[in-house]
Amino acid sequence: MTMTTLWFNQKATAPSDDASIEAHKRQLELTKPPCSLGRLEQLAITLASHQGVDRPIIEAIHISIFAADHGIAAKGVSAFPQAVTQQMIHNFSNGGAAINALATYNNCRLEVVNLGTVSPLPELPKVLDSTIAAGTKDFSTAAAMSVTECLQALEQGRQAVERCDENCHLFIGGEMGIGNTSSASALSSALLALAPSATTGLGTGLNPGGLANKIELIERSIERAKRDAQGIVFENQSERALFYLRQLGGFEIVALVGAFIAAAQAGISVLVDGFICTAAALVACKINPGVRAWLIASHQSEELGHKKLLAALNLKALLSLDMRLGEASGAALCIPLLQQACALHNNMSTFAEAGVSQ
Amino acid sequence: MTMTTLWFNQKATAPSDDASIEAHKRQLELTKPPCSLGRLEQLAITLASHQGVDRPIIEAIHISIFAADHGIAAKGVSAFPQAVTQQMIHNFSNGGAAINALATYNNCRLEVVNLGTVSPLPELPKVLDSTIAAGTKDFSTAAAMSVTECLQALEQGRQAVERCDENCHLFIGGEMGIGNTSSASALSSALLALAPSATTGLGTGLNPGGLANKIELIERSIERAKRDAQGIVFENQSERALFYLRQLGGFEIVALVGAFIAAAQAGISVLVDGFICTAAALVACKINPGVRAWLIASHQSEELGHKKLLAALNLKALLSLDMRLGEASGAALCIPLLQQACALHNNMSTFAEAGVSQ
Repeated sequence: MTMTTLWFNQKATAPSDDASIEAHKRQLELTKPPCSLGRLEQLAITLASHQGVDRPIIEAIHISIFAADHGIAAKGVSAFPQAVTQQMIHNFSNGGAAINALATYNNCRLEVVNLGTVSPLPELPKVLDSTIAAGTKDFSTAAAMSVTECLQALEQGRQAVERCDENCHLFIGGEMGIGNTSSASALSSALLALAPSATTGLGTGLNPGGLANKIELIERSIERAKRDAQGIVFENQSERALFYLRQLGGFEIVALVGAFIAAAQAGISVLVDGFICTAAALVACKINPGVRAWLIASHQSEELGHKKLLAALNLKALLSLDMRLGEASGAALCIPLLQQACALHNNMSTFAEAGVSQ
Repeated sequence: MTMTTLWFNQKATAPSDDASIEAHKRQLELTKPPCSLGRLEQLAITLASHQGVDRPIIEAIHISIFAADHGIAAKGVSAFPQAVTQQMIHNFSNGGAAINALATYNNCRLEVVNLGTVSPLPELPKVLDSTIAAGTKDFSTAAAMSVTECLQALEQGRQAVERCDENCHLFIGGEMGIGNTSSASALSSALLALAPSATTGLGTGLNPGGLANKIELIERSIERAKRDAQGIVFENQSERALFYLRQLGGFEIVALVGAFIAAAQAGISVLVDGFICTAAALVACKINPGVRAWLIASHQSEELGHKKLLAALNLKALLSLDMRLGEASGAALCIPLLQQACALHNNMSTFAEAGVSQ
């Protein structure tokens, strides 16, 4: 399929160079030794360039949690039973999950998008039923999804960004899907040419035997996908990334890819959660390199592959607190850092205003 | 002087073991893989043990910024002129400094305590005039302060904690004083038996020549203090710490020591800012070991000696963002992390409540 005319290949917005220059100048004039606010200074500058303003703010925040089941879960890659995907969707709906506590604390709009669980769910408050299929296929034996399903999932991500308020300052994507660290590891290894042993971790808490099985399975899955790629001539990096996304992804990961691309096209800052979201961010940047400028890394996850993904994207996490939960929890936790970077940038006096020697 | 009967040697409150055990149990029941919230889990448990409750909160927050001048500044140890101490007190009073922006964001009570600048200041809103002297003496040539002055500064710290609301959940101390990284380095080296080259950094932005001068001066100051210690028999670690505090400290550092001890005695959690506050925390723990249980490290400063101080106290910073500003800015930045740790602990559903498989 030639995808160059499709929506996700259309250009991302360019951040404002003028706003970036002005914000940088202002940082040097504030009543503090130059650079003494460390990474908060560049954070404010980045947000100013995203918003094209002198004084950026982070008030309207949209969190979309994409949920789906994974065929690969049948192979025992997770410490939790597959039923937990559905149970957690109920928990999100009832307000009992980690992301609910953090979204409430940070006054965010939170929605859950169900892209397909192994058995159907009843209608639930705050949960959009956008079922594509009853989970993906086991990607160790076949492509995780069809081309049509992949395009549908990308479109679901785009629509999530369309649901953001007009003045939305920040988009956060999250995920829930038992088995999805396997998908993220497989994608990372395939796209970064890394051995699965270097990108595969314990997920929600595998034992060493389970980890060895998971790594072996991912190796086999990538070999399988590469065999399927034989004879295909990828016209560009974008097509290659889409191929592996369809082969090894999950519906929620594909939706995150679509959402990140759409946010960059709409000019909305993206705060990237942990391992799985960063894998999606990598795919998004491979498909559409303009996405990169809109990404802010939130936390450094405990998952083995996450550091490699961040390095490949030239991103550095703001927080490193040994978290490995997913569901956008690490990103949400960082919201006050962004807001405080803005508060400092916007509200501190300059040397001239305060009469302080420089 | 025998100090064992003085207020700062009286026992700190003991955190609640029962609350700690209950909080730990609850963390394992919340709808997440065990330990997947990383360090936020222990943070919530620590706060529960401090507050002696099942569900800790961080709402009433008191920030005291202690300011004073340093005789050592005359020796060119800072990139900024000494007048900046006074200028920054004006800036705090006018609401233009970094800590003002962060205190407003986090809805904290902020007060500034002036312990003595080189020339007197007019009455200023939000600034308490608690002048002890027009700065300390140059500690490279003589003790920084007299015993009486040291006791006065400790008392000022105690009184700051007395001004906290009755239900105060968190005490944050901050400092302002041109030259005070020299004092913190000298104290760190003297109390941890480390070479000054291992504890001395660029402060607000020295050049390499300035750094070499600063290190040499601190070496000389410690030798001078050690000579003065000859013949004194320290009855215990507390007396030894007090001796070096008086020799090498600054009024604001001594006040921080007093405040940290008083907070631990009052059973109030202490969020420790960067290098200078951690040096004060070390002294406080040497004087009164019960203080340690009440300390939470906020950020990892860029200053060279800070890592060694945190290691000596067996503390690990929550944030590491290359900051080196002081004035409690790193601590204030971490307040939302504590609050979010509480929000997760208090508001997430348990597996049983949510019907999620464990």
